[in-house]
Amino acid sequence: MKRRDFLKSTGAGSLAAGSLLTGIGTASAKEKTKFKWKMVTTWPKNFPGLGTGANNLAELINQMSNGRIEVKVYGAGELVPALEVFDAVSRGTAQMGHGAAYYWKGKSEAAQFFSAVPFGLTGQEMNGWLYYGGGMALWEEVYAQFNLVPAAAGNTGVQMGGWFNKEINSLDDLEGLKMRIPGLGGEVLKRAGGTPVNLPGGELYTSLQSGNIDATEWVGPYNDLAFGLHKIAKYYYYPGWHEPGTTLEAMINKEAFEELPADLQSIVLSACKAVNLDMLSEYTARNNTALKTLVEKHNVDLRRYPDDVLKKLRNLSDEVVAEVAEKDKMSKKVYESFKKFRDQAMEWHRISEQTYMAAREM
Amino acid sequence: MKRRDFLKSTGAGSLAAGSLLTGIGTASAKEKTKFKWKMVTTWPKNFPGLGTGANNLAELINQMSNGRIEVKVYGAGELVPALEVFDAVSRGTAQMGHGAAYYWKGKSEAAQFFSAVPFGLTGQEMNGWLYYGGGMALWEEVYAQFNLVPAAAGNTGVQMGGWFNKEINSLDDLEGLKMRIPGLGGEVLKRAGGTPVNLPGGELYTSLQSGNIDATEWVGPYNDLAFGLHKIAKYYYYPGWHEPGTTLEAMINKEAFEELPADLQSIVLSACKAVNLDMLSEYTARNNTALKTLVEKHNVDLRRYPDDVLKKLRNLSDEVVAEVAEKDKMSKKVYESFKKFRDQAMEWHRISEQTYMAAREM
Repeated sequence: MKRRDFLKSTGAGSLAAGSLLTGIGTASAKEKTKFKWKMVTTWPKNFPGLGTGANNLAELINQMSNGRIEVKVYGAGELVPALEVFDAVSRGTAQMGHGAAYYWKGKSEAAQFFSAVPFGLTGQEMNGWLYYGGGMALWEEVYAQFNLVPAAAGNTGVQMGGWFNKEINSLDDLEGLKMRIPGLGGEVLKRAGGTPVNLPGGELYTSLQSGNIDATEWVGPYNDLAFGLHKIAKYYYYPGWHEPGTTLEAMINKEAFEELPADLQSIVLSACKAVNLDMLSEYTARNNTALKTLVEKHNVDLRRYPDDVLKKLRNLSDEVVAEVAEKDKMSKKVYESFKKFRDQAMEWHRISEQTYMAAREM
Repeated sequence: MKRRDFLKSTGAGSLAAGSLLTGIGTASAKEKTKFKWKMVTTWPKNFPGLGTGANNLAELINQMSNGRIEVKVYGAGELVPALEVFDAVSRGTAQMGHGAAYYWKGKSEAAQFFSAVPFGLTGQEMNGWLYYGGGMALWEEVYAQFNLVPAAAGNTGVQMGGWFNKEINSLDDLEGLKMRIPGLGGEVLKRAGGTPVNLPGGELYTSLQSGNIDATEWVGPYNDLAFGLHKIAKYYYYPGWHEPGTTLEAMINKEAFEELPADLQSIVLSACKAVNLDMLSEYTARNNTALKTLVEKHNVDLRRYPDDVLKKLRNLSDEVVAEVAEKDKMSKKVYESFKKFRDQAMEWHRISEQTYMAAREM
């Protein structure tokens, strides 16, 4: 975005000039400026968890800033189509966006590491990597090329494996399958002989119903129930090996962010962090109830992927993820940081989370 | 706290009166008021994770409020002793405190559910219960009796089982053991024939060294290494069945909180939420490196509790926790909410987190 567009869109120019005249002892120009921001999202407006998470983020920024930033949320297609959110914020059509980084692999292969990696990090581990393992700094470096400031702003926890109309008993059953599965998970499906498709959430139901795709994954019980996917698919597989703790993102137009005084910058980033935690908490609380409804009320056939399928998918995933590192220098840098952290996190969680949860079942 | 003490301590009285005279068009009285807050903590000043988490919380409030709230942090013993934090904030000696709710079981048995329950919720599940399972509302109800507003402001993740100078091969090995272990975990130890002691962190090393206690648990590798517990104990047991995801708390004096305008209230609570996530991320990132140092450099003998010990501790824990519910009406209410959520969370995590983490090891 050019500077003059930013000034036009926020009104910062005239307000700043005006308040400079009020002299010493009053709030500084920046403190008095009101910012009107648009937040475009990749989700249907008010969609449970994802869309409402974006709403919460806007509301929190409005509240904490006492209206000094007014954020208005647009659902997918309201201002720009779902998968044009990245470009819209990059060029300044909107000051802010909410989505998931793997949607932008066409822009940057490295971006995928900041959303979900097959057999990668859980939600808790993603946050460990981003905030204390160097991940955030790398994400900032990747997005800076596109005039964007990134922030983690939501997490789904371990997702479900997806909806199918046939049993998955061996890897062969994935062959020829046209499935909606974004990011690196899609690459793994391709390696297994399937055809991955990236569609925004709002198009899943009709695509599956019309036979345009054979199978789909989305998020987890809470969200999948809301879309009614159980009405058009019989088998519901777990675990979501391809998305073990997907980070949702906020992206902020760089000039828009830099125009903010320090307190408002802190408010925006802290609101993202609060919503990051809040969303994972919501999924943790609500998935089980939704799953019960799916199984008990709608007779969904809940299935665990066979060990053999998981093992083979795990091997393919390791290959696919390692190959991303070869695509460009930045991807290599991000991959190496991610991989190192995953190995450490796995070691630690073997004796903490995993041993504890097993002991709890005794 | 009496109202006049609050006004004295914050200077809100005079500032409010002054700014009322400035008339329409300027910031309201509440918006201009500056609040000087003291935060007392149960941790040694600047202690890694816990103490630095409290520092981060203060810093974030200062930053987001642009100095309208200035929070000064006091380590354990600087203003009041560690285990008097609750009383100090309740009566208004300090406006804010940082600690863990099980330290206050002498005030309220129900409080223990808001920190750690043996064989209870993991960190992620605690947040699910608090924010989306009714836990926060119950916590507010419990603390309102003491003139306090609570907030979750940190989590350690699954802790370690503790430091011993003898092997724990059966439950009999816990008999007669004098061990520092707070809250409900301590009650379980008592039921197993041991003697639980509640000591603040800063006293662990000398107590264990002098033989005043035989064993201790603290948090996890990152914190235990900082205290040097490996110098005076040989065996390091896991998992921390007694503290599977301890929530750290911020407590705010009710009058102090209510004096804040809405934007600052939102800033204080959102800062707590951001720090809640941040601290768990820090532990997730740093525990493994510290564990390596303990094992590889300091030759600590890392041991898993035998299955039989875990099973028996699990049974004792179920008894102990259920008995808390019989102590008073409030405890019963909290227990029932907690138990219902735990059962649901366990069901969901059996097919999500647990199945995924097992698949990742294949």
